[in-house]
Amino acid sequence: MLTLYIGNKNYSSWSMRPWVLMKQAGIPFEERMLRFDSFEGESRFKQEILKVTPTGRVPVLVDDGFAVWDTLAIAEYVAEKFPDRQLWPQDPKARARARSVCAEMHSGFGALRSHCPMNIEATLAQNGAIVWRDQPAVRADVQRIVAMWTELLSEHKGPMLFGEFGIADAFFAPVCMRIRNYALPVPGHITDYIRRVCALPGVKAWIDDALQEHDFVDFDEPYRIKR
Amino acid sequence: MLTLYIGNKNYSSWSMRPWVLMKQAGIPFEERMLRFDSFEGESRFKQEILKVTPTGRVPVLVDDGFAVWDTLAIAEYVAEKFPDRQLWPQDPKARARARSVCAEMHSGFGALRSHCPMNIEATLAQNGAIVWRDQPAVRADVQRIVAMWTELLSEHKGPMLFGEFGIADAFFAPVCMRIRNYALPVPGHITDYIRRVCALPGVKAWIDDALQEHDFVDFDEPYRIKR
Ligand SMILES: N[C@@H](CCC(=O)N[C@@H](CS)C(=O)NCC(=O)O)C(=O)O
Ligand SMILES: N[C@@H](CCC(=O)N[C@@H](CS)C(=O)NCC(=O)O)C(=O)O
Repeated sequence: MLTLYIGNKNYSSWSMRPWVLMKQAGIPFEERMLRFDSFEGESRFKQEILKVTPTGRVPVLVDDGFAVWDTLAIAEYVAEKFPDRQLWPQDPKARARARSVCAEMHSGFGALRSHCPMNIEATLAQNGAIVWRDQPAVRADVQRIVAMWTELLSEHKGPMLFGEFGIADAFFAPVCMRIRNYALPVPGHITDYIRRVCALPGVKAWIDDALQEHDFVDFDEPYRIKR
Repeated sequence: MLTLYIGNKNYSSWSMRPWVLMKQAGIPFEERMLRFDSFEGESRFKQEILKVTPTGRVPVLVDDGFAVWDTLAIAEYVAEKFPDRQLWPQDPKARARARSVCAEMHSGFGALRSHCPMNIEATLAQNGAIVWRDQPAVRADVQRIVAMWTELLSEHKGPMLFGEFGIADAFFAPVCMRIRNYALPVPGHITDYIRRVCALPGVKAWIDDALQEHDFVDFDEPYRIKR
Protein backbone atom coordinates (compact mmCIF):
# COMPACT_ATOMS: atom_id res chain seq x y z
CA MET A 1 0.00 0.00 0.00
CA LEU A 2 1.36 3.40 -1.04
CA THR A 3 0.80 6.51 1.08
CA LEU A 4 1.87 9.92 -0.14
CA TYR A 5 2.45 12.66 2.42
CA ILE A 6 1.95 16.11 0.97
CA GLY A 7 1.60 19.73 2.05
CA ASN A 8 -1.12 22.26 1.20
CA LYS A 9 -2.21 21.73 -2.37
CA ASN A 10 -2.46 25.43 -3.03
CA TYR A 11 1.17 26.05 -2.12
CA SER A 12 3.28 22.89 -2.13
CA SER A 13 4.92 22.76 -5.52
CA TRP A 14 7.14 19.83 -4.52
CA SER A 15 4.16 17.80 -3.35
CA MET A 16 2.29 18.44 -6.57
CA ARG A 17 4.80 16.51 -8.69
CA PRO A 18 4.50 12.94 -7.38
CA TRP A 19 0.77 13.37 -6.66
CA VAL A 20 0.05 14.43 -10.25
CA LEU A 21 2.40 11.76 -11.57
CA MET A 22 0.65 8.92 -9.76
CA LYS A 23 -2.87 10.25 -10.23
CA GLN A 24 -2.43 10.81 -13.96
CA ALA A 25 -0.74 7.41 -14.38
CA GLY A 26 -3.58 5.69 -12.55
CA ILE A 27 -1.42 4.39 -9.70
CA PRO A 28 -3.53 3.91 -6.57
CA PHE A 29 -2.31 5.60 -3.38
CA GLU A 30 -3.61 7.04 -0.18
CA GLU A 31 -3.01 10.70 0.51
CA ARG A 32 -2.10 12.34 3.83
CA MET A 33 -2.15 16.10 3.81
CA LEU A 34 -0.12 17.84 6.51
CA ARG A 35 -1.15 21.45 6.71
CA PHE A 36 1.66 24.02 6.69
CA ASP A 37 1.17 25.69 10.07
CA SER A 38 4.85 26.63 10.16
CA PHE A 39 8.23 25.05 9.40
CA GLU A 40 9.59 25.69 12.92
CA GLY A 41 10.64 22.74 15.07
CA GLU A 42 7.63 22.93 17.34
CA SER A 43 5.07 23.18 14.49
CA ARG A 44 2.56 20.40 14.05
CA PHE A 45 3.76 20.01 10.46
CA LYS A 46 7.36 19.34 11.55
CA GLN A 47 6.39 17.06 14.39
CA GLU A 48 4.19 14.93 12.16
CA ILE A 49 6.50 14.77 9.15
CA LEU A 50 9.56 13.96 11.26
CA LYS A 51 7.81 10.78 12.33
CA VAL A 52 7.89 9.72 8.68
CA THR A 53 11.14 11.15 7.24
CA PRO A 54 14.38 12.47 8.73
CA THR A 55 14.40 15.37 6.27
CA GLY A 56 11.30 16.96 7.80
CA ARG A 57 9.91 17.78 4.37
CA VAL A 58 7.10 16.77 2.08
CA PRO A 59 6.56 14.93 -0.20
CA VAL A 60 7.29 11.47 1.17
CA LEU A 61 6.04 8.22 -0.31
CA VAL A 62 5.62 5.41 2.20
CA ASP A 63 5.45 1.92 0.74
CA ASP A 64 4.45 -0.57 3.39
CA GLY A 65 6.36 1.28 6.09
CA PHE A 66 9.38 2.12 3.92
CA ALA A 67 9.87 5.86 3.33
CA VAL A 68 11.08 7.27 0.03
CA TRP A 69 11.67 10.99 0.21
CA ASP A 70 12.48 13.68 -2.29
CA THR A 71 10.42 14.08 -5.46
CA LEU A 72 13.05 12.81 -7.84
CA ALA A 73 13.70 9.65 -5.83
CA ILE A 74 9.94 9.11 -5.53
CA ALA A 75 9.58 9.42 -9.29
CA GLU A 76 12.35 6.85 -9.89
CA TYR A 77 10.83 4.52 -7.31
CA VAL A 78 7.38 4.65 -8.87
CA ALA A 79 8.84 4.26 -12.37
CA GLU A 80 10.67 1.10 -11.25
CA LYS A 81 7.67 -0.30 -9.38
CA PHE A 82 5.23 0.24 -12.27
CA PRO A 83 7.31 -0.35 -15.41
CA ASP A 84 4.19 -0.84 -17.56
CA ARG A 85 3.20 2.81 -17.05
CA GLN A 86 6.31 3.92 -18.92
CA LEU A 87 6.78 6.97 -16.75
CA TRP A 88 10.17 7.61 -18.33
CA PRO A 89 10.53 7.48 -22.14
CA GLN A 90 11.45 4.02 -23.42
CA ASP A 91 14.17 5.24 -25.76
CA PRO A 92 17.46 5.53 -23.81
CA LYS A 93 18.39 8.92 -25.23
CA ALA A 94 14.95 10.38 -24.67
CA ARG A 95 15.06 8.93 -21.16
CA ALA A 96 18.44 10.53 -20.50
CA ARG A 97 17.13 13.84 -21.79
CA ALA A 98 14.03 13.58 -19.59
CA ARG A 99 16.26 12.94 -16.59
CA SER A 100 18.48 15.90 -17.52
CA VAL A 101 15.58 18.34 -17.59
CA CYS A 102 14.03 16.95 -14.40
CA ALA A 103 17.34 17.15 -12.54
CA GLU A 104 17.88 20.65 -13.95
CA MET A 105 14.48 21.60 -12.51
CA HIS A 106 15.27 19.85 -9.27
CA SER A 107 18.26 22.01 -8.39
CA GLY A 108 17.64 25.06 -10.51
CA PHE A 109 15.29 27.90 -11.39
CA GLY A 110 15.81 29.45 -7.99
CA ALA A 111 14.81 32.94 -9.10
CA LEU A 112 11.45 31.82 -10.52
CA ARG A 113 10.86 29.74 -7.43
CA SER A 114 11.55 32.43 -4.91
CA HIS A 115 9.94 35.39 -6.72
CA CYS A 116 6.89 33.49 -7.96
CA PRO A 117 6.00 30.91 -5.32
CA MET A 118 3.18 28.62 -6.36
CA ASN A 119 -0.23 29.89 -5.32
CA ILE A 120 -2.89 28.18 -7.39
CA GLU A 121 -5.92 30.11 -6.20
CA ALA A 122 -4.40 33.59 -6.48
CA THR A 123 -4.53 36.11 -9.33
CA LEU A 124 -1.11 37.70 -9.30
CA ALA A 125 -0.69 39.21 -12.74
CA GLN A 126 0.30 42.63 -11.38
CA ASN A 127 2.94 41.13 -9.14
CA GLY A 128 4.11 39.00 -12.03
CA ALA A 129 4.51 42.09 -14.22
CA ILE A 130 6.63 43.82 -11.57
CA VAL A 131 8.77 40.72 -11.04
CA TRP A 132 9.18 40.46 -14.80
CA ARG A 133 10.28 44.09 -15.07
CA ASP A 134 12.67 44.03 -12.11
CA GLN A 135 14.17 40.54 -11.99
CA PRO A 136 16.46 39.61 -14.86
CA ALA A 137 17.13 36.23 -13.21
CA VAL A 138 13.42 35.37 -13.43
CA ARG A 139 13.40 36.37 -17.08
CA ALA A 140 16.45 34.15 -17.65
CA ASP A 141 14.75 31.21 -15.90
CA VAL A 142 11.61 31.57 -18.02
CA GLN A 143 13.68 32.01 -21.16
CA ARG A 144 15.47 28.74 -20.47
CA ILE A 145 12.15 26.97 -19.82
CA VAL A 146 10.63 28.31 -23.02
CA ALA A 147 13.66 27.17 -25.02
CA MET A 148 13.60 23.72 -23.39
CA TRP A 149 9.88 23.12 -23.88
CA THR A 150 9.96 24.47 -27.42
CA GLU A 151 12.70 22.04 -28.37
CA LEU A 152 11.12 19.05 -26.65
CA LEU A 153 7.62 19.70 -27.99
CA SER A 154 8.93 20.04 -31.51
CA GLU A 155 11.26 17.03 -31.27
CA HIS A 156 8.68 14.67 -29.77
CA LYS A 157 5.71 16.23 -31.57
CA GLY A 158 3.70 16.75 -28.35
CA PRO A 159 1.17 16.86 -26.86
CA MET A 160 3.42 16.41 -23.81
CA LEU A 161 7.16 17.12 -23.49
CA PHE A 162 8.23 13.62 -24.51
CA GLY A 163 5.16 12.69 -26.53
CA GLU A 164 2.94 11.02 -23.97
CA PHE A 165 2.55 12.21 -20.37
CA GLY A 166 5.44 11.27 -18.08
CA ILE A 167 7.65 12.34 -15.21
CA ALA A 168 8.95 15.44 -16.99
CA ASP A 169 5.45 16.88 -17.39
CA ALA A 170 4.71 16.20 -13.73
CA PHE A 171 7.96 17.91 -12.78
CA PHE A 172 7.12 21.04 -14.72
CA ALA A 173 3.45 21.18 -13.73
CA PRO A 174 4.19 23.62 -10.86
CA VAL A 175 6.07 25.82 -13.34
CA CYS A 176 2.94 25.85 -15.52
CA MET A 177 1.01 27.06 -12.48
CA ARG A 178 3.48 29.86 -11.84
CA ILE A 179 3.58 31.09 -15.43
CA ARG A 180 -0.22 31.03 -15.51
CA ASN A 181 -0.94 32.67 -12.13
CA TYR A 182 1.70 35.37 -12.46
CA ALA A 183 0.76 35.82 -16.14
CA LEU A 184 4.40 35.74 -17.20
CA PRO A 185 4.75 36.51 -20.91
CA VAL A 186 5.45 33.38 -22.97
CA PRO A 187 4.83 32.51 -26.62
CA GLY A 188 1.51 31.04 -27.74
CA HIS A 189 2.72 27.46 -28.17
CA ILE A 190 3.91 27.53 -24.55
CA THR A 191 0.53 28.80 -23.34
CA ASP A 192 -1.01 25.96 -25.35
CA TYR A 193 1.19 23.40 -23.61
CA ILE A 194 0.28 24.88 -20.22
CA ARG A 195 -3.40 24.63 -21.16
CA ARG A 196 -2.96 20.98 -22.12
CA VAL A 197 -1.18 20.26 -18.82
CA CYS A 198 -3.96 21.94 -16.82
CA ALA A 199 -6.53 19.83 -18.69
CA LEU A 200 -4.91 16.50 -17.76
CA PRO A 201 -7.30 14.80 -15.31
CA GLY A 202 -4.48 14.28 -12.78
CA VAL A 203 -3.53 17.96 -12.85
CA LYS A 204 -7.12 19.18 -12.92
CA ALA A 205 -7.88 17.08 -9.82
CA TRP A 206 -5.00 18.73 -7.95
CA ILE A 207 -6.05 22.23 -9.02
CA ASP A 208 -9.67 21.58 -8.00
CA ASP A 209 -8.55 20.36 -4.58
CA ALA A 210 -6.27 23.39 -4.19
CA LEU A 211 -9.18 25.73 -4.94
CA GLN A 212 -11.28 23.97 -2.30
CA GLU A 213 -8.66 24.40 0.40
CA HIS A 214 -9.44 27.99 1.41
CA ASP A 215 -6.42 28.11 3.66
CA PHE A 216 -4.08 31.10 4.01
CA VAL A 217 -0.45 30.30 4.81
CA ASP A 218 1.11 33.69 5.42
CA PHE A 219 4.75 32.65 5.07
CA ASP A 220 3.94 31.42 1.55
CA GLU A 221 2.21 34.70 0.65
CA PRO A 222 4.70 37.43 -0.28
CA TYR A 223 2.04 39.29 -2.27
CA ARG A 224 -1.21 39.04 -0.27
CA ILE A 225 -2.17 39.96 3.26
CA LYS A 226 -5.34 37.88 3.24
CA ARG A 227 -7.50 35.87 0.83
CA MET B 1 33.35 7.49 -26.57
CA LEU B 2 32.48 9.40 -23.39
CA THR B 3 33.70 12.95 -22.81
CA LEU B 4 33.11 14.70 -19.51
CA TYR B 5 33.19 18.49 -19.44
CA ILE B 6 34.14 19.85 -16.06
CA GLY B 7 35.16 23.09 -14.35
CA ASN B 8 38.19 23.83 -12.19
CA LYS B 9 38.94 20.82 -10.05
CA ASN B 10 39.76 22.94 -7.04
CA TYR B 11 36.36 24.60 -7.02
CA SER B 12 33.77 22.73 -9.06
CA SER B 13 31.90 20.57 -6.59
CA TRP B 14 29.28 19.57 -9.17
CA SER B 15 31.96 18.45 -11.62
CA MET B 16 33.69 16.37 -8.97
CA ARG B 17 30.76 13.96 -8.61
CA PRO B 18 30.56 12.29 -12.03
CA TRP B 19 34.33 12.46 -12.51
CA VAL B 20 34.98 10.63 -9.24
CA LEU B 21 32.14 8.22 -9.97
CA MET B 22 33.49 7.17 -13.35
CA LYS B 23 37.15 7.20 -12.31
CA GLN B 24 36.57 5.11 -9.22
CA ALA B 25 34.31 2.69 -11.13
CA GLY B 26 36.94 2.28 -13.84
CA ILE B 27 34.79 3.67 -16.64
CA PRO B 28 36.99 5.14 -19.38
CA PHE B 29 36.30 8.73 -20.42
CA GLU B 30 38.02 11.73 -21.84
CA GLU B 31 38.08 14.89 -19.77
CA ARG B 32 37.69 18.48 -20.97
CA MET B 33 38.35 21.11 -18.39
CA LEU B 34 36.85 24.54 -19.00
CA ARG B 35 38.47 27.05 -16.72
CA PHE B 36 36.14 29.33 -14.76
CA ASP B 37 37.12 32.73 -16.08
CA SER B 38 33.67 34.08 -15.26
CA PHE B 39 30.04 33.02 -15.58
CA GLU B 40 29.02 36.09 -17.59
CA GLY B 41 27.66 35.69 -21.09
CA GLU B 42 30.81 36.85 -22.80
CA SER B 43 33.17 34.65 -20.75
CA ARG B 44 35.13 31.95 -22.53
CA PHE B 45 33.65 29.43 -20.11
CA LYS B 46 30.07 30.30 -21.13
CA GLN B 47 30.83 30.49 -24.81
CA GLU B 48 32.49 27.09 -24.80
CA ILE B 49 29.98 25.28 -22.59
CA LEU B 50 26.98 26.68 -24.47
CA LYS B 51 28.26 24.87 -27.54
CA VAL B 52 27.75 21.63 -25.61
CA THR B 53 24.69 22.18 -23.38
CA PRO B 54 21.82 24.68 -23.35
CA THR B 55 22.13 25.04 -19.56
CA GLY B 56 25.54 26.69 -19.79
CA ARG B 57 26.81 24.68 -16.83
CA VAL B 58 29.25 21.94 -16.05
CA PRO B 59 29.32 18.98 -15.71
CA VAL B 60 28.13 17.59 -19.04
CA LEU B 61 28.72 14.08 -20.29
CA VAL B 62 28.85 13.76 -24.05
CA ASP B 63 28.33 10.26 -25.41
CA ASP B 64 29.08 10.15 -29.12
CA GLY B 65 27.70 13.64 -29.66
CA PHE B 66 24.71 13.24 -27.33
CA ALA B 67 24.81 15.55 -24.29
CA VAL B 68 23.63 14.46 -20.86
CA TRP B 69 23.67 17.34 -18.39
CA ASP B 70 23.16 17.64 -14.67
CA THR B 71 25.04 15.39 -12.24
CA LEU B 72 22.08 13.29 -11.22
CA ALA B 73 21.04 12.56 -14.81
CA ILE B 74 24.68 11.76 -15.65
CA ALA B 75 24.84 9.32 -12.74
CA GLU B 76 21.65 7.56 -13.89
CA TYR B 77 22.93 7.44 -17.46
CA VAL B 78 26.24 5.89 -16.47
CA ALA B 79 24.50 3.44 -14.12
CA GLU B 80 22.25 2.29 -16.98
CA LYS B 81 25.09 2.09 -19.47
CA PHE B 82 27.38 0.08 -17.20
CA PRO B 83 25.03 -2.16 -15.19
CA ASP B 84 27.89 -4.51 -14.20
CA ARG B 85 29.51 -1.76 -12.13
CA GLN B 86 26.50 -1.73 -9.81
CA LEU B 87 26.69 1.98 -9.21
CA TRP B 88 23.35 1.92 -7.43
CA PRO B 89 22.73 -0.72 -4.74
CA GLN B 90 21.17 -3.91 -6.13
CA ASP B 91 18.53 -4.20 -3.42
CA PRO B 92 15.48 -2.12 -4.41
CA LYS B 93 15.03 -0.54 -0.97
CA ALA B 94 18.69 0.31 -0.61
CA ARG B 95 18.57 1.72 -4.14
CA ALA B 96 15.55 3.86 -3.28
CA ARG B 97 17.30 5.11 -0.16
CA ALA B 98 20.46 5.92 -2.14
CA ARG B 99 18.36 7.90 -4.61
CA SER B 100 16.62 9.72 -1.75
CA VAL B 101 19.85 10.91 -0.20
CA CYS B 102 21.38 11.87 -3.56
CA ALA B 103 18.27 13.83 -4.56
CA GLU B 104 18.24 15.42 -1.10
CA MET B 105 21.84 16.52 -1.70
CA HIS B 106 20.99 17.67 -5.20
CA SER B 107 18.46 20.28 -4.14
CA GLY B 108 19.41 20.88 -0.55
CA PHE B 109 22.16 21.88 1.87
CA GLY B 110 22.13 25.41 0.51
CA ALA B 111 23.62 26.95 3.65
CA LEU B 112 26.62 24.63 3.69
CA ARG B 113 27.08 25.18 -0.01
CA SER B 114 27.03 28.93 0.06
CA HIS B 115 28.96 29.51 3.29
CA CYS B 116 31.57 26.81 2.69
CA PRO B 117 32.20 26.65 -1.06
CA MET B 118 34.53 23.85 -2.06
CA ASN B 119 38.15 24.88 -2.17
CA ILE B 120 40.34 21.82 -2.02
CA GLU B 121 43.74 23.49 -1.77
CA ALA B 122 42.79 26.00 0.94
CA THR B 123 43.14 25.81 4.72
CA LEU B 124 40.04 27.52 6.03
CA ALA B 125 39.64 26.29 9.59
CA GLN B 126 39.32 29.81 11.02
CA ASN B 127 36.63 30.73 8.53
CA GLY B 128 34.92 27.43 9.24
CA ALA B 129 34.89 28.17 12.97
CA ILE B 130 33.29 31.55 12.39
CA VAL B 131 30.71 30.10 10.02
CA TRP B 132 29.99 27.40 12.57
CA ARG B 133 29.49 29.95 15.34
CA ASP B 134 27.34 32.36 13.33
CA GLN B 135 25.30 30.22 10.93
CA PRO B 136 22.70 27.97 12.51
CA ALA B 137 21.59 26.83 9.05
CA VAL B 138 25.08 25.46 8.37
CA ARG B 139 25.01 23.64 11.70
CA ALA B 140 21.61 22.20 10.77
CA ASP B 141 22.91 21.04 7.38
CA VAL B 142 25.91 19.32 8.95
CA GLN B 143 23.75 17.81 11.67
CA ARG B 144 21.49 16.27 9.01
CA ILE B 145 24.51 14.92 7.11
CA VAL B 146 26.01 13.41 10.25
CA ALA B 147 22.70 11.72 11.10
CA MET B 148 22.30 10.41 7.55
CA TRP B 149 25.84 9.03 7.26
CA THR B 150 25.74 7.55 10.74
CA GLU B 151 22.57 5.64 9.94
CA LEU B 152 23.76 4.45 6.53
CA LEU B 153 27.21 3.40 7.72
CA SER B 154 25.74 1.44 10.57
CA GLU B 155 22.98 -0.15 8.49
CA HIS B 156 25.21 -1.21 5.60
CA LYS B 157 28.28 -1.85 7.80
CA GLY B 158 30.57 0.40 5.70
CA PRO B 159 33.15 1.09 4.53
CA MET B 160 31.07 3.26 2.15
CA LEU B 161 27.54 4.60 2.65
CA PHE B 162 25.84 1.61 1.06
CA GLY B 163 28.57 -0.95 1.68
CA GLU B 164 30.66 -0.73 -1.47
CA PHE B 165 31.48 2.52 -3.28
CA GLY B 166 28.63 3.90 -5.39
CA ILE B 167 26.83 7.00 -6.59
CA ALA B 168 25.94 8.18 -3.08
CA ASP B 169 29.60 8.33 -2.03
CA ALA B 170 30.46 10.26 -5.19
CA PHE B 171 27.60 12.67 -4.49
CA PHE B 172 28.83 13.40 -0.99
CA ALA B 173 32.53 13.57 -1.85
CA PRO B 174 32.40 17.39 -2.18
CA VAL B 175 30.74 17.54 1.24
CA CYS B 176 33.67 15.55 2.62
CA MET B 177 35.99 18.18 1.14
CA ARG B 178 34.06 21.00 2.78
CA ILE B 179 33.93 19.41 6.22
CA ARG B 180 37.65 18.71 5.99
CA ASN B 181 38.84 22.05 4.62
CA TYR B 182 36.68 24.18 6.89
CA ALA B 183 37.42 21.80 9.80
CA LEU B 184 33.77 21.62 10.75
CA PRO B 185 33.30 19.67 13.98
CA VAL B 186 31.94 16.16 13.35
CA PRO B 187 32.15 12.92 15.36
CA GLY B 188 35.11 10.55 14.95
CA HIS B 189 33.30 7.94 12.87
CA ILE B 190 32.38 10.68 10.37
CA THR B 191 36.00 11.84 10.16
CA ASP B 192 36.91 8.21 9.56
CA TYR B 193 34.45 7.96 6.68
CA ILE B 194 35.82 11.18 5.19
CA ARG B 195 39.32 9.75 5.45
CA ARG B 196 38.22 6.57 3.65
CA VAL B 197 36.58 8.64 0.90
CA CYS B 198 39.73 10.73 0.43
CA ALA B 199 41.78 7.54 0.15
CA LEU B 200 39.69 6.09 -2.71
CA PRO B 201 41.93 6.17 -5.81
CA GLY B 202 39.25 8.02 -7.81
CA VAL B 203 38.93 10.72 -5.15
CA LYS B 204 42.64 10.94 -4.51
CA ALA B 205 43.25 11.47 -8.23
CA TRP B 206 40.80 14.42 -8.26
CA ILE B 207 42.37 15.96 -5.15
CA ASP B 208 45.88 15.60 -6.58
CA ASP B 209 44.81 17.28 -9.82
CA ALA B 210 43.09 20.07 -7.86
CA LEU B 211 46.29 20.72 -5.91
CA GLN B 212 48.25 20.95 -9.15
CA GLU B 213 45.93 23.53 -10.65
CA HIS B 214 47.37 26.64 -8.95
CA ASP B 215 44.56 28.78 -10.30
CA PHE B 216 42.78 31.52 -8.34
CA VAL B 217 39.13 32.11 -9.22
CA ASP B 218 38.20 35.19 -7.23
CA PHE B 219 34.41 34.83 -7.45
CA ASP B 220 34.77 31.40 -5.79
CA GLU B 221 36.95 32.80 -3.01
CA PRO B 222 34.90 34.50 -0.30
CA TYR B 223 37.70 34.01 2.25
CA ARG B 224 40.98 34.67 0.41
CA ILE B 225 42.32 37.58 -1.56
CA LYS B 226 45.09 35.56 -3.19
CA ARG B 227 46.73 32.15 -2.98
N1 LIG C 1 14.05 18.40 -2.58
C1 LIG C 1 12.84 18.15 -1.81
C2 LIG C 1 12.24 19.46 -1.38
C3 LIG C 1 10.99 19.33 -0.55
C4 LIG C 1 10.59 20.63 0.13
O1 LIG C 1 11.40 21.56 0.28
N2 LIG C 1 9.32 20.66 0.59
C5 LIG C 1 8.80 21.80 1.33
C6 LIG C 1 7.33 22.01 1.06
S1 LIG C 1 6.95 22.36 -0.63
C7 LIG C 1 8.93 21.51 2.81
O2 LIG C 1 8.50 20.46 3.27
N3 LIG C 1 9.51 22.43 3.59
C8 LIG C 1 9.67 22.29 4.97
C9 LIG C 1 10.88 23.02 5.46
O3 LIG C 1 11.58 23.63 4.62
O4 LIG C 1 11.15 22.98 6.65
C10 LIG C 1 11.92 17.31 -2.67
O5 LIG C 1 12.13 17.25 -3.89
O6 LIG C 1 11.04 16.63 -2.16
N1 LIG D 1 22.41 21.04 -11.08
C1 LIG D 1 23.59 21.19 -11.89
C2 LIG D 1 24.43 22.30 -11.35
C3 LIG D 1 25.68 22.56 -12.12
C4 LIG D 1 26.34 23.88 -11.75
O1 LIG D 1 25.73 24.77 -11.16
N2 LIG D 1 27.63 24.01 -12.13
C5 LIG D 1 28.38 25.24 -11.92
C6 LIG D 1 29.85 24.97 -11.68
S1 LIG D 1 30.18 23.97 -10.25
C7 LIG D 1 28.32 26.07 -13.18
O2 LIG D 1 28.58 25.57 -14.27
N3 LIG D 1 27.95 27.34 -13.05
C8 LIG D 1 27.86 28.25 -14.16
C9 LIG D 1 26.81 29.29 -13.92
O3 LIG D 1 26.19 29.25 -12.85
O4 LIG D 1 26.63 30.13 -14.79
C10 LIG D 1 24.30 19.84 -11.92
O5 LIG D 1 24.01 19.00 -11.06
O6 LIG D 1 25.09 19.57 -12.82
